[in-house]
Amino acid sequence: MIKRRKTRIVSIGSVKIGSSQPVAIQSMTKVATTDIERCTEQIKQLAEAGCSLVRVAIPRRADSEAFAKIVRRVKVPLIADIHFSAERAIEAIEAGAAKIRLNPGNIKRQSDIEQIIDAAKMHKVAIRIGVNEASIRDLTKSDVPTTKRITLMLAEMKKYVRIFEKRKFRQLVLSVKSSDCLRTIETNRRIAEEFDYPIHLGLTHAGLPEDAAIPSAVALGTLLAEGIGDTVRVSAAGDPVEEVIIAKQILYALGLFKQQKPELIVCPTCGRTEIDIVSLARVVKKAIAPVKKPLRIAVMGCIVNGPGEAADADLAICGGKDKAFIYRRGEKITACNQKDIAAILTRELKKL
Amino acid sequence: MIKRRKTRIVSIGSVKIGSSQPVAIQSMTKVATTDIERCTEQIKQLAEAGCSLVRVAIPRRADSEAFAKIVRRVKVPLIADIHFSAERAIEAIEAGAAKIRLNPGNIKRQSDIEQIIDAAKMHKVAIRIGVNEASIRDLTKSDVPTTKRITLMLAEMKKYVRIFEKRKFRQLVLSVKSSDCLRTIETNRRIAEEFDYPIHLGLTHAGLPEDAAIPSAVALGTLLAEGIGDTVRVSAAGDPVEEVIIAKQILYALGLFKQQKPELIVCPTCGRTEIDIVSLARVVKKAIAPVKKPLRIAVMGCIVNGPGEAADADLAICGGKDKAFIYRRGEKITACNQKDIAAILTRELKKL
Repeated sequence: MIKRRKTRIVSIGSVKIGSSQPVAIQSMTKVATTDIERCTEQIKQLAEAGCSLVRVAIPRRADSEAFAKIVRRVKVPLIADIHFSAERAIEAIEAGAAKIRLNPGNIKRQSDIEQIIDAAKMHKVAIRIGVNEASIRDLTKSDVPTTKRITLMLAEMKKYVRIFEKRKFRQLVLSVKSSDCLRTIETNRRIAEEFDYPIHLGLTHAGLPEDAAIPSAVALGTLLAEGIGDTVRVSAAGDPVEEVIIAKQILYALGLFKQQKPELIVCPTCGRTEIDIVSLARVVKKAIAPVKKPLRIAVMGCIVNGPGEAADADLAICGGKDKAFIYRRGEKITACNQKDIAAILTRELKKL
Repeated sequence: MIKRRKTRIVSIGSVKIGSSQPVAIQSMTKVATTDIERCTEQIKQLAEAGCSLVRVAIPRRADSEAFAKIVRRVKVPLIADIHFSAERAIEAIEAGAAKIRLNPGNIKRQSDIEQIIDAAKMHKVAIRIGVNEASIRDLTKSDVPTTKRITLMLAEMKKYVRIFEKRKFRQLVLSVKSSDCLRTIETNRRIAEEFDYPIHLGLTHAGLPEDAAIPSAVALGTLLAEGIGDTVRVSAAGDPVEEVIIAKQILYALGLFKQQKPELIVCPTCGRTEIDIVSLARVVKKAIAPVKKPLRIAVMGCIVNGPGEAADADLAICGGKDKAFIYRRGEKITACNQKDIAAILTRELKKL
């Protein structure tokens, strides 16, 4: 139902991104790139969790050497995260990166950029221009007003894109990140108006996982709901698999990702509820955990919306004072005691 | 920075809602209304947590009797949640409700509605027309297409609003809830175009707290970022205080709520990081926990964005291999070992 903003299509190894393609989830490794074993293992864990693109930091020559070995060990396309150094970028391109991420805030020399472009062209490697608010020198003061911040981030992007376009390089992905939701939303809206390249979305430095989920859902969700965003990364300190899980939940909420597991709808309960819905929902959650199918399961506590949600669900449990009613796609199939719910659910899940 | 959609102002007891007012957070009690002690206690907990309006279910006459006593014990304006019964609505109005929530899906008789309107007018009580997708009979089939669902929810709202406007009742708040994010977003956009009454936002039956936060942040965040929404409720099974905390995080992310506590920005870490940022962030989180001031604290792990985020933060810790640097509003004030960070932070926090 979301009308994606129309973009060019960019190939990142075997993964295509852009408006005709699914929104791709990416994350980043968080171990030393030179620790080839652990880095390879983390990339595989990310791919297994549903990450279509994995980014790897290449700060030193030893990292690009390790990267060359890691590339050969994994199937998922790798993105080399480059700062400050054209040498690292070229090494990563030659090592087999599917995409290079450059930060205009720290590769300022046009001749360096041109060298990278030529190498990327030769090896058919895509490039993300990744503007980061905290990397723009003029923005590292706390008293810069919001409108000026947005204007400067946009100007930085325009300047960089022009250098690429002059050399007829169009395998570009654009991103503008900030640790502020509103600036992220507004700047990306402007980028979306200005260019037709795919956009990578992220809210940077979002925090510890428990603090990062909501601001990321707000910033990325708002843009995605407006059709903006072709690939996403949730930033959270800690295990990168957590980032992928949050990203999947955001995309799922907007119908941009099909989960191969049931969705559990639960009534929030109120003064009308006569049973312990949270305990019942936990029982149901456990019973459906092994299911690998995108079903909709509802656990409801009263007659106000219970039957309505039941009708819209593959399976629904409406809990009443003495017994619970089980519905299969709107049809009441049985009444039972709370203790029998798990067994009946498991049986019904097998039938679906 | 968000330009709120212009609305009328509606008074709910001492709380005004609408575009010139802050977005009000509401939640709902989840104990039997007849259990006056526990219900009063939960209302007070919610108010303490930052909830400006509390809704209470009134399914039976005994509940409206209890409600009359509860109203006298609390300061926060109470909303009576009414389904099926005009009698309950009138009892709640007479008992001192600041607002009545009616569900057009289950109070169908126009004479009943007119009776409620007249009572609300006399007692200067506001009314929320709360359309719930699962309560609309024509929508309790799983094969109804999305566009038809949206059209029907909008039609239901229009029909109801007309009845109120005919009787010159304009102390209205409108809401359309669904357990689906996209339908919630799109229907509320249409409601916002059609009417100038304040809008109450919520994603209903969102799930257990761990599952409810992200879809709620996506649905409510998207609408709020577009300027839509004057009061919000996050639905999550379990302790209603959790709902208030999630709502505050959503509003905070969009600059619609000022938290009286520091915000903690943490770099997600990558292959460049040479220290354990998560542990460091946990130490910092503990050190700032007692602070009741809206500061911005950043914990960063490398030189790419570290100095930039440091400049934009009241206090920043940039962790390096051997030592950490502490910045106060962009100025490097000291270097220290990791074990001394908590003590130095606490000292610096006192100075701010």
